[in-house]
Amino acid sequence: MPTAALLVIGNEILSGKIVDTNSPFLAAELRGLGVDLERILTVPDEIDIIAEEVLAFSRAYDHVFTSGGIGPTHDDVTMEGVARAFKREVVLDQTICDRIERARGKPINSAMRKMAMLPAGAKAVDAGDLWFPIVVVENVHIFPGIPQLFEKKFRSIRHRFSGVPFRLTRIFVDRYESDIADSLNELLGEFPELLLGSYPRIGERDYRVMLTLESRDPDYLERAARALCAKLPPDAIHEIQ
Amino acid sequence: MPTAALLVIGNEILSGKIVDTNSPFLAAELRGLGVDLERILTVPDEIDIIAEEVLAFSRAYDHVFTSGGIGPTHDDVTMEGVARAFKREVVLDQTICDRIERARGKPINSAMRKMAMLPAGAKAVDAGDLWFPIVVVENVHIFPGIPQLFEKKFRSIRHRFSGVPFRLTRIFVDRYESDIADSLNELLGEFPELLLGSYPRIGERDYRVMLTLESRDPDYLERAARALCAKLPPDAIHEIQ
Repeated sequence: MPTAALLVIGNEILSGKIVDTNSPFLAAELRGLGVDLERILTVPDEIDIIAEEVLAFSRAYDHVFTSGGIGPTHDDVTMEGVARAFKREVVLDQTICDRIERARGKPINSAMRKMAMLPAGAKAVDAGDLWFPIVVVENVHIFPGIPQLFEKKFRSIRHRFSGVPFRLTRIFVDRYESDIADSLNELLGEFPELLLGSYPRIGERDYRVMLTLESRDPDYLERAARALCAKLPPDAIHEIQ
Repeated sequence: MPTAALLVIGNEILSGKIVDTNSPFLAAELRGLGVDLERILTVPDEIDIIAEEVLAFSRAYDHVFTSGGIGPTHDDVTMEGVARAFKREVVLDQTICDRIERARGKPINSAMRKMAMLPAGAKAVDAGDLWFPIVVVENVHIFPGIPQLFEKKFRSIRHRFSGVPFRLTRIFVDRYESDIADSLNELLGEFPELLLGSYPRIGERDYRVMLTLESRDPDYLERAARALCAKLPPDAIHEIQ
C-alpha cells in the first residue's frame, strides 16, 4: 500500500497561536483513499530544518505533503527549503507571475514576486479554480497552510492517490478498558491481521470505551467484529457503527 | 531558553479517527511558560519507532513529552518504547500496583498489571488527585493520550518548566498580505530580534491578515509595534490586541 508523511511548517503551530486543522483533515482523507499516513511532523519556519526533513521524508515514503510557508512574507521559506532538500535553486516561474498579475489586476510587486519563485524543475499542477497551482517537486506536494485552501487544493488532486481503503467498524462499550483488555488480546490472537484500537472516553454518558476494528478485507472485518461481540457481555455493548 | 519536543503516539491520530488536541494545548502552555517547543511528531504505536524518536528527542531538547499509548491494551506500547530508547527493561512497580488496586477496589488483573510496568529506574511524579502518576525517565515526561488527563496532569507539574515568556501583540490588518509584505520586511530590518508572524484569513469580515509581533523584551515589542503602525496606512489597521 502507498505510504505518506506530512510536514507541517509553521512557528504559529509550535507557539500555540494557531491550531493545525490540516493534519486531521489530511489524515482522514488519506485513510479514506487507502494511503497509509505514517508520520506528521511540525517544524519551525527554517530553511535548513525544512530541507533536512523533506529529504528524509521523500526517501522514506511514497508521498510527502507539506503545509504552510508559501506566502509572500519573510517567514514563508518552504519553497527554499524544498529546493535545498533536492539541491536545486529557486527560480522565477513566469507563468505564475502572469497568473498573479491577472488575478490581482495590477503589476506584480516584490512580495508577490516571491510567491512565483519555485524550486527549479518543479511541476505546477492546476488546482481547480484557484489561481495558484499545487507545486510538486519529486514526490513532494506543496500545500498552503490556510485551511480553506489546503482542503480545496487537496480535493482537486485526491484522485491521484489511491490504495485499498480500510473498512472500519466501531463498537462502543460500557466497560472500563482494563475490564475488556483480556478479551481484546484474545481477539488479536485469533485475528492477527486485524487493526484494533481501544480509546477510553471520559464524560460520555453511554459508553466508556470506543473500540475500532479495521481491515482492508470486509469479510475478515465482519468475522472479527462478530467474534468480539461474542466475547463481551451482551449488556456491555452500547452501539455498533 | 529551555527547549522542548512533543512525541504524539497513536495510530488513531494518523488514521484520522481522533483529532489530537493535546498538541495545541501543550504548545500554548509551553509558550506561556517561555519554553520553546521545537518539534511535534506523531508516530504509530510501534516500539522501535517510539524508541528511536524518544532517544533522538531526548538528546536534542531539554524537555521531551509523550502523549498516548500508556493504557492497559495491546496497542499501548509507550512504556516499552521509552524503556528501549534508554536500553532499560520494563519492570513491575509495586507502588502503582497497590494504587491501582486501591483505586479500583478489586484485585489487579493482567491488563491492569500491564499499566504498572514501567521502565526500570523511572521516577513517578504525583499528579494532583489522579491515582496514576506522571512517569519520568531521564528528561522524558510520559503523559496519557486522553485529553482531560493530559491537561490535568500537565497543569499539576507545569511549575517545573519555565523560561522567560514571550509577550505578544496582535495587529489585525484589512489589506492583502502581499500589499503589506514590503512593510513587514522593512520592520524586520529595523527590529531583527522581533518574531513576526503574518497569517492571512479567509472569511473574516473586518480584516484580511493577522500579524503577530513577539519578543521576550516588552519594551522592544512596544517600539516594534509602534514602528509597524507608522508604516501601515491608518485605515488598514482594524484592531490591536
